[in-house]
Amino acid sequence: MIKKILNNPENSVDEMIDGVVQSHSKLVKRIPETGIIQRSLEKTGKVAIISGGGSGHEPAHAGFVGKGMLSAAVCGAVFTSPTPDQILEAIKAADEGAGVFLVIKNYSGDIMNFEMAQELAEMEDIKVDSIIVDDDIAVEDSLYTQGKRGVAGTIFVHKILGYAAEQGQSIEEIKKLAEALVPNIKTVGVALTGVTTPGSNEPSFTLADDEIEYGVGIHGEPGYRREKLQSSQGLSEELLTKLLKEFDAKAQDRFAIIVNGLGGTPLMEQYVFANDVHKSMKEHDLVIDFSKVGNLMTSLEMQGLSLTLLRLNEAFYLEALEAPVDTISW
Amino acid sequence: MIKKILNNPENSVDEMIDGVVQSHSKLVKRIPETGIIQRSLEKTGKVAIISGGGSGHEPAHAGFVGKGMLSAAVCGAVFTSPTPDQILEAIKAADEGAGVFLVIKNYSGDIMNFEMAQELAEMEDIKVDSIIVDDDIAVEDSLYTQGKRGVAGTIFVHKILGYAAEQGQSIEEIKKLAEALVPNIKTVGVALTGVTTPGSNEPSFTLADDEIEYGVGIHGEPGYRREKLQSSQGLSEELLTKLLKEFDAKAQDRFAIIVNGLGGTPLMEQYVFANDVHKSMKEHDLVIDFSKVGNLMTSLEMQGLSLTLLRLNEAFYLEALEAPVDTISW
Repeated sequence: MIKKILNNPENSVDEMIDGVVQSHSKLVKRIPETGIIQRSLEKTGKVAIISGGGSGHEPAHAGFVGKGMLSAAVCGAVFTSPTPDQILEAIKAADEGAGVFLVIKNYSGDIMNFEMAQELAEMEDIKVDSIIVDDDIAVEDSLYTQGKRGVAGTIFVHKILGYAAEQGQSIEEIKKLAEALVPNIKTVGVALTGVTTPGSNEPSFTLADDEIEYGVGIHGEPGYRREKLQSSQGLSEELLTKLLKEFDAKAQDRFAIIVNGLGGTPLMEQYVFANDVHKSMKEHDLVIDFSKVGNLMTSLEMQGLSLTLLRLNEAFYLEALEAPVDTISW
Repeated sequence: MIKKILNNPENSVDEMIDGVVQSHSKLVKRIPETGIIQRSLEKTGKVAIISGGGSGHEPAHAGFVGKGMLSAAVCGAVFTSPTPDQILEAIKAADEGAGVFLVIKNYSGDIMNFEMAQELAEMEDIKVDSIIVDDDIAVEDSLYTQGKRGVAGTIFVHKILGYAAEQGQSIEEIKKLAEALVPNIKTVGVALTGVTTPGSNEPSFTLADDEIEYGVGIHGEPGYRREKLQSSQGLSEELLTKLLKEFDAKAQDRFAIIVNGLGGTPLMEQYVFANDVHKSMKEHDLVIDFSKVGNLMTSLEMQGLSLTLLRLNEAFYLEALEAPVDTISW
């Protein structure tokens, strides 16, 4: 059984949110009685970018709230979409008059609730638009998803749209940007262990002592293959080959990458893996212009990692990724 | 057995360092054939702050190299001090003419090697001074330590001395600052699991499924008590009571805190715990002016966390903590 540092498991998300806003009170605040973490900034009339979803993926999404990224994050229960009324509340609180743009990971519950909130907000004359992120190429359709799942690549969407909003782009421009951007982001992961949600006694799945599973989702959804633990180099080859197939990449194509720890994997292993990815990319005659390594979109204490590639076919993407922000976790 | 994403375990640190510098090539570079990660900045004639020690505590220390913090980090083998010649190399590379200040965690091996390097550098006419950080109040003397161990509070030393150096303080001023600062930093932790070093088959210690150990060191050194797993609130009371005893704190005293994940504990649990710490501190009529939460000084994949308090009895400390830096992980 996994030991956890919690009080009543039912209150974990609530207490976590209080922990976040008390620890970073200059950056963020909580809208009382809600799961919404909002920027502490004065409003400047720009488009507000909102994301959110089930909790358990920290620092996503609250860690990316702040100047230059998200205006607010809506935190649902663990691995559970926030309700439409919570999302509506976030939209109303974040709107600065220029409209609100929603970044939604592709899970059926999230899509249903975010879209309902969008309709409700539009009825209150708030301009709202949205993008669905479906970067996980591991499998088509899954436990909670039609199509492909939304995972760590979502962080690149936050960063690039956040920069566009900060630059004063309109909601129409941001929509166009998002639609061009998302198809250029692909992710695939590997799990070494399962994940146990607070209050439950059993992990969502188990792997043998020498076994891994490729393509597991960030809620423990099934992947595409189990096999014996590989070397970091072997894992990097597997994930990279799968990703590059999707891109139809040409020599000297330029990329940004995320090596994303799933929660329980130490940074040392993430950097050993990052080293193998950099080596392999060079061997493929591909260029990495930007790297992010760390626990960004986690699955509680799951051991494993994911690799995200973003093809930098617009100079704006790299400019956006490199711009400084003021958040807890970027 | 713990599964790890590595290649040949013997090369883990080497490959990790390559991973770090390739992933963040604008910020840091490796001095070839060494375990030294150095700033990519142009030199400006300021005092250079250097830290280092055994690897396995990532992001410490390489993640704190950059403008406003460390000039270089020296990475030893896993849980093993870097050699004097490596540290000497780092001193020579980092020196900008104003001298080099070493931040040493209190382990016998580190002290011996850093002090030897200091003597060697002085023989080459480089001005060197140093401070020993011994913030872990859990136990006196330990497996690798005379006195108290140096742990997560070291990050506050990096930040505050790094700011002083950036402000142009002399090495004598920095020494004085460090001597006043370190006694105001206290840390104590709790482990939920042991830790297994790359290449070994067994964890350094084991805990039963419902058991925790207070005061375990970041190399798995013994702590001061084992008991059944407590609630986050219970853990927070235990650690905070132990820390506050050391401070002889008065009502309205002001503190900075670090809630430091030891590697395998999710951010959700760290923030639940941070929430309990904030609540308890209020009940003690003490004020938290600055909080840092996350995996900063880890012990590979160990589950657990530590709590650091820094008494802010100088306005300069808070000013230094709040100043922006350009590093991978602060």
